[in-house]
Amino acid sequence: MKKRIAVLPGDGIGKEVTKGAINVLQAVGERFGHQFEFTYGSIGGGAIDAHGTPLPEETIEVCKKSDAVLLGAVGGPKWETLPGHLRPEKGLLRIRKELNLYANLRPVSYYSSTAATSPLRQEVIEGADMLVVRELTGGLYFGKPSERSTAENGEDSVVDTLFYKKSEMERVIRLAFQLAEKRDKKVTSVDKANVLESSRMWRETAEEIAKEHPAVKLEHMLVDNAAMQLIRNPKQFDVLVTENLFGDILSDEASVLTGSLGMLPSASISENGPYLYEPIHGSAPDIEGKNIANPIAMILSAAMMLRTSFNLDKEAAAVENAVKQVLESGSKTSDIALPGQKTIGTAEMIEEIKATI
Amino acid sequence: MKKRIAVLPGDGIGKEVTKGAINVLQAVGERFGHQFEFTYGSIGGGAIDAHGTPLPEETIEVCKKSDAVLLGAVGGPKWETLPGHLRPEKGLLRIRKELNLYANLRPVSYYSSTAATSPLRQEVIEGADMLVVRELTGGLYFGKPSERSTAENGEDSVVDTLFYKKSEMERVIRLAFQLAEKRDKKVTSVDKANVLESSRMWRETAEEIAKEHPAVKLEHMLVDNAAMQLIRNPKQFDVLVTENLFGDILSDEASVLTGSLGMLPSASISENGPYLYEPIHGSAPDIEGKNIANPIAMILSAAMMLRTSFNLDKEAAAVENAVKQVLESGSKTSDIALPGQKTIGTAEMIEEIKATI
Ligand SMILES: CC(C)[C@H](C(=O)O)[C@@H](O)C(=O)O
Ligand SMILES: CC(C)[C@H](C(=O)O)[C@@H](O)C(=O)O
Repeated sequence: MKKRIAVLPGDGIGKEVTKGAINVLQAVGERFGHQFEFTYGSIGGGAIDAHGTPLPEETIEVCKKSDAVLLGAVGGPKWETLPGHLRPEKGLLRIRKELNLYANLRPVSYYSSTAATSPLRQEVIEGADMLVVRELTGGLYFGKPSERSTAENGEDSVVDTLFYKKSEMERVIRLAFQLAEKRDKKVTSVDKANVLESSRMWRETAEEIAKEHPAVKLEHMLVDNAAMQLIRNPKQFDVLVTENLFGDILSDEASVLTGSLGMLPSASISENGPYLYEPIHGSAPDIEGKNIANPIAMILSAAMMLRTSFNLDKEAAAVENAVKQVLESGSKTSDIALPGQKTIGTAEMIEEIKATI
Repeated sequence: MKKRIAVLPGDGIGKEVTKGAINVLQAVGERFGHQFEFTYGSIGGGAIDAHGTPLPEETIEVCKKSDAVLLGAVGGPKWETLPGHLRPEKGLLRIRKELNLYANLRPVSYYSSTAATSPLRQEVIEGADMLVVRELTGGLYFGKPSERSTAENGEDSVVDTLFYKKSEMERVIRLAFQLAEKRDKKVTSVDKANVLESSRMWRETAEEIAKEHPAVKLEHMLVDNAAMQLIRNPKQFDVLVTENLFGDILSDEASVLTGSLGMLPSASISENGPYLYEPIHGSAPDIEGKNIANPIAMILSAAMMLRTSFNLDKEAAAVENAVKQVLESGSKTSDIALPGQKTIGTAEMIEEIKATI
């Protein structure tokens, strides 16, 4: 199989961890006889420095011509004082819109080899295995108006707009149900239907889509309660689906439950591809270039790509098993090691995983 | 001292726990020589049944004429299918607006006697002590429009509006700084300034108010990161201040960290009083009338009232110490007991606390 992959390393540790994914994909290519062609593009702070924009047209073109996109991470203190439209994050928001990536998928699961670093008690998280599906191109992130005004009696005020088309709700909720069919057949739809009109439409839409999937159980949960339930009993969740901003908050909350933040991949899905894969963690500028970043989230994002975009199940499993084996052999980067345990660096971790494939 | 207190028991376990607060206040009155006059009002589902509205005008009048308001909890499955304007929650939202309760204060702290029921590891929560200050009368909760439309190409769509006046941000942020002056002198202001215009105004406003309080350290945190940090390291927080919906989510998240959800009080503050005090927990209709609800959150809400509305510090401390003593003596309701431990009922817990005052 021959595939074109766009690689956007981004800022901070983005470059270091992306290298890990490329190395591992090359090993997979050799072992299973595939050809992966990598084309690099710039995004985020680096793109601002080089091209004066967080997402050059060229990068968009490269992505659109590829079969899948791998993204590292964007942002850093250097660019934090720039005006809004010139922030690294704008590059991320724009690529989501340009590629029409309407759903972000984040599997969060318990790893016995890192559970000891979780802030939660072992018995609370043991066996937890959920998939958070976040709507990614609507809601408060993109609604207009989003501006200041002095309209009301000359007083300073501000407005942001939470806007959704029903069709935008339908496609992401439908995807959640399709994914639940292949998992434990339960969808928890999260909203704030006791306050927001958009949430009431969301809830109705979930009810409608549920009728298309009689084998899947639908449960509604208010967002404030979901923030509690994720901590109190994470095992109750199978697929959790929610709108953009609730998903931003809850998926980050979910990502720290198992103690494996540095190991969690994500996929962003569109209707006709290409999909985009990125680790959940940020660009961590404070540890950039120190050879201590954990490359596993990025490597597992590449595995997700193999399975989801290329249907290469065997190859994806080979990567996931290599990660598991290396962790079980006791090799850990510092973020997932316990105090006093021996740790290895980013480069060594990449080498070990590559060698195991 | 003579004080008039409006009592709105509400639905579900609201009635049972409110009785606890009244009992304890009577004991305080006897011991310290104060007179508390209680006037009852209806709110929520019960008010819908009796008066056809979740907040009768009469209840508003009673509250406005009182020195403070005690609220139990509202809601239940019986009223969940009613149209939006006839939901129990509307009563709650409206009383906040009518009394201009612009800030909700939720202290969350570690109790050694219930820590074992926390989902978090002991070392993560031991010593945690934070105050969440939530804006309560603005943002997405009250912004207009909040409605469906088919304006864009005849497609079904929906909009909610996040609206804030700068003055609304100022007063709640200023309150947070004033409260921090009396605590550990640190304010964490939570927003989503990398996406929302309202959050950028919030952040600027926090910077401005910080200049009035040079002794207090201001830190900004993005809401998604805050959802992670609350779990990873709750001890880093002193006063956390944020807008209405973020506050709804984060304060509920914070409330489960210490394992003492059934013990957490809250106060809602206005510019000229009366203030409103209520437990953090809901109406829990599933355990209504079973004599198993934990009355401590309501009793500690009464203690907060004594201190905050009436400046009765000694009296508030007497209630808080009584609660502490009873817990340390081993008496627990089932929500804060460990499996296998002996438990007592709502009425017994109230009796023990009353007797200890
Ligand atoms: C950087 C930011 C705009 C982004 C978001 O809020 O979507 C990030 O938090 C994420 O979750 O990918
Ligand atoms: C019942 C609901 C409207 C309310 C809110 O969202 O404010 C509740 O969750 C709360 O936090 O008091």
